[in-house]
Amino acid sequence: MTTGHHPRRPDDLAVTAVERVRPGPTTRVRVREVSGGTVRDRRDDLATEEPLEIRITAGGATHTLAITMRTPGADFELAAGFLSGEGIAGAGDIASIAYCTDEDLPPEARYNTVTVRLRGPVLPDLPTMHRHFMTSSACGVCGTASLDALRTRQTSLKETRAVSTEDTRPVLTEVTPMRALAPVAAEVLYELPQRLREAQGIFGKTGGLHAAGLFAPDGTLLAVREDVGRHNAVDKLVGWALMSERLPLSSYLLLVSGRTSYEIMQKALAAGVPMVCGVSAPSSLAVDLAREFDMTLVGFLRGERFNIYARPERIKVAPA
Amino acid sequence: MTTGHHPRRPDDLAVTAVERVRPGPTTRVRVREVSGGTVRDRRDDLATEEPLEIRITAGGATHTLAITMRTPGADFELAAGFLSGEGIAGAGDIASIAYCTDEDLPPEARYNTVTVRLRGPVLPDLPTMHRHFMTSSACGVCGTASLDALRTRQTSLKETRAVSTEDTRPVLTEVTPMRALAPVAAEVLYELPQRLREAQGIFGKTGGLHAAGLFAPDGTLLAVREDVGRHNAVDKLVGWALMSERLPLSSYLLLVSGRTSYEIMQKALAAGVPMVCGVSAPSSLAVDLAREFDMTLVGFLRGERFNIYARPERIKVAPA
Repeated sequence: MTTGHHPRRPDDLAVTAVERVRPGPTTRVRVREVSGGTVRDRRDDLATEEPLEIRITAGGATHTLAITMRTPGADFELAAGFLSGEGIAGAGDIASIAYCTDEDLPPEARYNTVTVRLRGPVLPDLPTMHRHFMTSSACGVCGTASLDALRTRQTSLKETRAVSTEDTRPVLTEVTPMRALAPVAAEVLYELPQRLREAQGIFGKTGGLHAAGLFAPDGTLLAVREDVGRHNAVDKLVGWALMSERLPLSSYLLLVSGRTSYEIMQKALAAGVPMVCGVSAPSSLAVDLAREFDMTLVGFLRGERFNIYARPERIKVAPA
Repeated sequence: MTTGHHPRRPDDLAVTAVERVRPGPTTRVRVREVSGGTVRDRRDDLATEEPLEIRITAGGATHTLAITMRTPGADFELAAGFLSGEGIAGAGDIASIAYCTDEDLPPEARYNTVTVRLRGPVLPDLPTMHRHFMTSSACGVCGTASLDALRTRQTSLKETRAVSTEDTRPVLTEVTPMRALAPVAAEVLYELPQRLREAQGIFGKTGGLHAAGLFAPDGTLLAVREDVGRHNAVDKLVGWALMSERLPLSSYLLLVSGRTSYEIMQKALAAGVPMVCGVSAPSSLAVDLAREFDMTLVGFLRGERFNIYARPERIKVAPA
């Protein structure tokens, strides 16, 4: 394959022109760290999460093949590897790979769309292929969700977000209504991961399952669900709540065993959950969503410590 | 909502009829455990991974909304939670939820299809919605892949697999050609996770990224890629290989930082990788795929130990 002037490194092609709006692999955010009874505000680097739309074009026709939530970087490799893995195109079939430079796209979206130009005279039989695309084991069908829909939903987010990956806004912006969730004590949060693990029961023994648990502000466990897919575990919890007429879940907090992505936050938001805690790191977009929609987001909840990425006012920390 | 005679627990409805073919949440497999220079064969429980097709029906029309790779159990909750999260249906919109009992489905597939009957006279505007479904942060577009396509692809798998979740086949079935991969020493495998972590560089500091690394049989690292989505990290690696004309990757092994799912194995298979190692657990379907397609699968690669789930003959263990 060739990719413009740089047959081996097509990613280099378009960088110079609009480097300033290209999202980086990490995003710096302000975070409130709670450790025992100690609180301090500092900065932290999170993995950037942004949607990438993969398009293919041939013979004048263009088709959106997939939209995936990814960390920016090696986007051309991602597109090529995806096409290769799906059997759509091998090295010999690819004429070029480029970011989208449509004038009708806002600048920041140009690096979230990659177009793979195929050598063939026409597109492969894509309608069939498209129909067969699956949701997935660890995220699933992410929202209602074309790239456009995602952007529309996040318009207010994007407008307030700096183009650089340096986040300069404080964690505490303004205190908004806390819905029905009573304040949660840090000491209660410290106990939750252990309670989640104990509730995992039989599934836990495999070491291969994500867990999601719903807790009351006093730490009482309401329900736990497990799955190979993070998003499935949350869907199961929400479905349980729906079927037992507990929606919206505005008096409860959600704990997930792994990382917190945009999709997890989106599902929590849809269910009315005002606080999400993760044992591992949140993504940049998870933090954005939390700040935009007035949700408290906790990460790295391990031992007697955690980070608060948004809306810390729902958590009470007793001085050491 | 009501669901037949059990308004609160619709999952109970169909269980009695075909309980014997219903997949369980865990699957017992034979595994070869290597710890230092010690080798022993034993049984281990893995999280079951199976596709679930979610259908909605109203006014005589039926539509496949999504296919997700999930762990069986709470499937009705999963479907209800998914619909709720996507804004397709709330509790009041759902008339019933049931497993598919179409006569034309093989028995084991009936528990992999859930149909949600809506109260409304017609289906929501689904063509639009369907077109907008996204691939995801941690799995993505899983193969070519309708449930049917998946089943076709796995026909030979299913035919040899017992209906029970107890796997009785030995890890070592027969020695098949090892393609181009030279045997790998256990001592080399022990070192790989640390090499992967060191190579993660800047991204690693966020604690929020999956990594995938490609190694030679002597432990030399060829390339590493990272992403919030496991499948994206593998796609990036494969795309790198494609663009540098290294496909197929039959002389190398793949190491992933987390769990090994069906989709990861599928992508490795498509790229010709004969050995996949994971720091955490594989799913049941990952093991099935490895055994079916002659791939060596290693899990729980931590410290000086690991488990081999398929094709152990590609690994050399020196006696302690």
